[in-house]
Amino acid sequence: MSGIRRPDHDRDQRVVERLGAVVGPGHVLRGADAAPFCTDWRGLFTGAPLAVVRPADAAQVAACVAACAAACVGVVAQGGNTGLCGGATPRDGEIVLSLGRLRRVRDVDPVDLVMEVEAGVTLQAARLAAAEAGLDLPLGIASEGSAQIGGVLATNAGGTATLRHGTARDLALGLEVVLADGRIWNGLRRLRKDNTGYALTKLFVGSEGTLGIITAACLRLVPAAGTREVAFVAVASPEAALGFLGLLRRADDAALAAFEYISGAALRLALAQIEGLSDPLGAPASHYVLLEMSSPRADALLRPVLEAVLAEAMEGGLVTDAVLAASEAQRDALWWLRETLGEAQQRAGATVKNDISVPISRIPDFLRQAAAVCVALEPGVGVVPFGHFGDGNIHFNLMVPDASQGEALMHAVGEVARGMGGSFSAEHGIGQLKTGSLGEWRGGVEMDIFGAIKDALDPRGVLNPGKIFACNSRT
Amino acid sequence: MSGIRRPDHDRDQRVVERLGAVVGPGHVLRGADAAPFCTDWRGLFTGAPLAVVRPADAAQVAACVAACAAACVGVVAQGGNTGLCGGATPRDGEIVLSLGRLRRVRDVDPVDLVMEVEAGVTLQAARLAAAEAGLDLPLGIASEGSAQIGGVLATNAGGTATLRHGTARDLALGLEVVLADGRIWNGLRRLRKDNTGYALTKLFVGSEGTLGIITAACLRLVPAAGTREVAFVAVASPEAALGFLGLLRRADDAALAAFEYISGAALRLALAQIEGLSDPLGAPASHYVLLEMSSPRADALLRPVLEAVLAEAMEGGLVTDAVLAASEAQRDALWWLRETLGEAQQRAGATVKNDISVPISRIPDFLRQAAAVCVALEPGVGVVPFGHFGDGNIHFNLMVPDASQGEALMHAVGEVARGMGGSFSAEHGIGQLKTGSLGEWRGGVEMDIFGAIKDALDPRGVLNPGKIFACNSRT
Repeated sequence: MSGIRRPDHDRDQRVVERLGAVVGPGHVLRGADAAPFCTDWRGLFTGAPLAVVRPADAAQVAACVAACAAACVGVVAQGGNTGLCGGATPRDGEIVLSLGRLRRVRDVDPVDLVMEVEAGVTLQAARLAAAEAGLDLPLGIASEGSAQIGGVLATNAGGTATLRHGTARDLALGLEVVLADGRIWNGLRRLRKDNTGYALTKLFVGSEGTLGIITAACLRLVPAAGTREVAFVAVASPEAALGFLGLLRRADDAALAAFEYISGAALRLALAQIEGLSDPLGAPASHYVLLEMSSPRADALLRPVLEAVLAEAMEGGLVTDAVLAASEAQRDALWWLRETLGEAQQRAGATVKNDISVPISRIPDFLRQAAAVCVALEPGVGVVPFGHFGDGNIHFNLMVPDASQGEALMHAVGEVARGMGGSFSAEHGIGQLKTGSLGEWRGGVEMDIFGAIKDALDPRGVLNPGKIFACNSRT
Repeated sequence: MSGIRRPDHDRDQRVVERLGAVVGPGHVLRGADAAPFCTDWRGLFTGAPLAVVRPADAAQVAACVAACAAACVGVVAQGGNTGLCGGATPRDGEIVLSLGRLRRVRDVDPVDLVMEVEAGVTLQAARLAAAEAGLDLPLGIASEGSAQIGGVLATNAGGTATLRHGTARDLALGLEVVLADGRIWNGLRRLRKDNTGYALTKLFVGSEGTLGIITAACLRLVPAAGTREVAFVAVASPEAALGFLGLLRRADDAALAAFEYISGAALRLALAQIEGLSDPLGAPASHYVLLEMSSPRADALLRPVLEAVLAEAMEGGLVTDAVLAASEAQRDALWWLRETLGEAQQRAGATVKNDISVPISRIPDFLRQAAAVCVALEPGVGVVPFGHFGDGNIHFNLMVPDASQGEALMHAVGEVARGMGGSFSAEHGIGQLKTGSLGEWRGGVEMDIFGAIKDALDPRGVLNPGKIFACNSRT
């Protein structure tokens, strides 16, 4: 692979000029203007790119990629820059393609239940456009006001609505993608079924900009919820949460829309950090579940179902306290509590973020074992997990007195998940942060397949170098 | 690529001996014993393989592939041999790996809602194993008694349950795959979320044995239905069917499990061909819908919902007649009618099978235009379409007096779908039958990507040569 390059200021200057000719000089940012695009949201990674370039459409993206490929300059596509693993942060000497100008919602079709959107549309704007047609784009992440569709797809975003509707990959019916050689693949089909060749849409989703740059997508929509019930529930233990989930599934699996876990410690930390938050329940508990049931029917009688399950769960000792939202405002307040957990931990200081998944049945064991190994390693650690219990995905986050211990703690938590057939990155992806873990966990045959696919679609290593694959292994 | 080979009887003999050493001589079939494995179900393709080999497990599959790769002999994996495009039929001089001995249901987990099965388990056996645990593997195809999981996944099978639960790809959480070099990729993870590298499971599903041979899978299950309502409905027109679908979605999208279309001509042909079938309605109609609503709840009140929608649809002139199944036997009888349509057409003689998909909103236009072009080409044609209306997937089948006209008719029907952004193979795949269409429809950039992936994972062209890619284009 020929991605290795030496500094060459003349060439760099020529590339930037060429890109300026493509997008117009006003859309090439350098120096202070470029700074916001050079560091990730968590402040873990900073790069010094040659420039940040803001193309207007797929043709300009393609021309930019072709110019960079010709000069062997790495290209990092960037959306809202809300990723948690540094996947959209440039390394030195690269070009950032910021896709925020591709922001057209091209079409919302209420019969086909499909929308076609460009990469730079924020998730929130896309969801609003769907809502205006009485539909829902069922993907909820805390950063949806900033995160853009291109990045959401490139990282196969998950969030709080995946329990019923799956991740971004499950919602993607078709894509438009700029390839490493600057050609455009138009796969913008809006078909529910299409067995004509390999599943390219599924492959590009989650490839973190290393196989192609997504410029537009056809996304599956669902009818908006006509009935919603949200409850905040204290459970006796993680095992009790699992038992409670089983009762809900048996009562009405099809209506269960979210089943989120919040540790007591995570809740208390949020209450301390975020103004205006209050504990929905009277007395503190160690484990909570935030759940939502919903139905497209306006007259679905979900509340009696939920009340009956809660009564059964209380009688069985699984649930110790619960509150049901009585209004839209109360529903929003309960969800706001869940959505601020990450922000609260960020504000509280040095956080180790884990993004573990295990088979759902193993969550209680995982929570217990992971806490034990962390406390053994660092007695002063604050264990503040929360996450998507119903998907087996726990953000086993830690407040550490000394940030230098982060890596050892992450590794220890990972090993617990690994012993349970789990994953070290359920929804955040690999980016720059987790390339080491990927090689370690998925080594051998699996990394060879990844590498073969990368080489096949980006033989010169132009697209997002150093992401998914460690810098020196594939550039 | 080095797949081109000249006849070499000594080498062929050595390969077969080597395979016999791997699987035991009793599991190498030749001559008359091999014949059932050499022709596809429709009788369109026949090959003369060197032998049919029946490995017992993934390790034997791997050893067989390695032996064939070393000798540059093509390998065709075969399950139940029920495919409709010749994807599992060998060409001359190849080896058939028949996977029916890999028939263990390894695990059914009612908490994780996952089953782990080997490739040779029939779809029916897998569904029965799930049902015994109170769960459902939600994939229904007419051939489920013979079709095996490996083939179901290799072809990304669809069928009558995809409206709610998606195709085989959507159900596959993890796979075990033998690669072209004889190594085994163990991707048998049972995680709902796992963003660690490229979506290999999604890529192998639907790759028709050309990228790897699936030997086992972890599949997503759902709670079994506690309430089911099935109705057979005469609709005034295809547009009326679309309007009726909209009413059902608005009433209870989450409960809609199937929405199948049957043309009057297809029904009458089935009534004539299949003994014991009877018309569920009193008077003949031109267009029918077979629909199912279901819920995991045992006490879900779906019948009143369905009756209300039917009343509204009748009042609006969308529905002209309807019958609701009153018992499990009646439900089965209605579904049997739907499932025999393909068999009835096969019995009735020369059939042209189309497997079109279009955006759902375009189905009425498609049905009308496709019928018009067929009658224009061949006035004696019998137009007998049916299919998965709710997925936009219509089997626009034709009874032709002269089989030689099949290709021209298929092409003409395809062009109508193409003009609507459709697909020429929604669920049957490419196999040998549709390699020409694939090149024509998905030419240029898309075929280049397919080719790059094929070359990356099977550089010597050992796996299922001549499938997906035409024989002389990639061997």
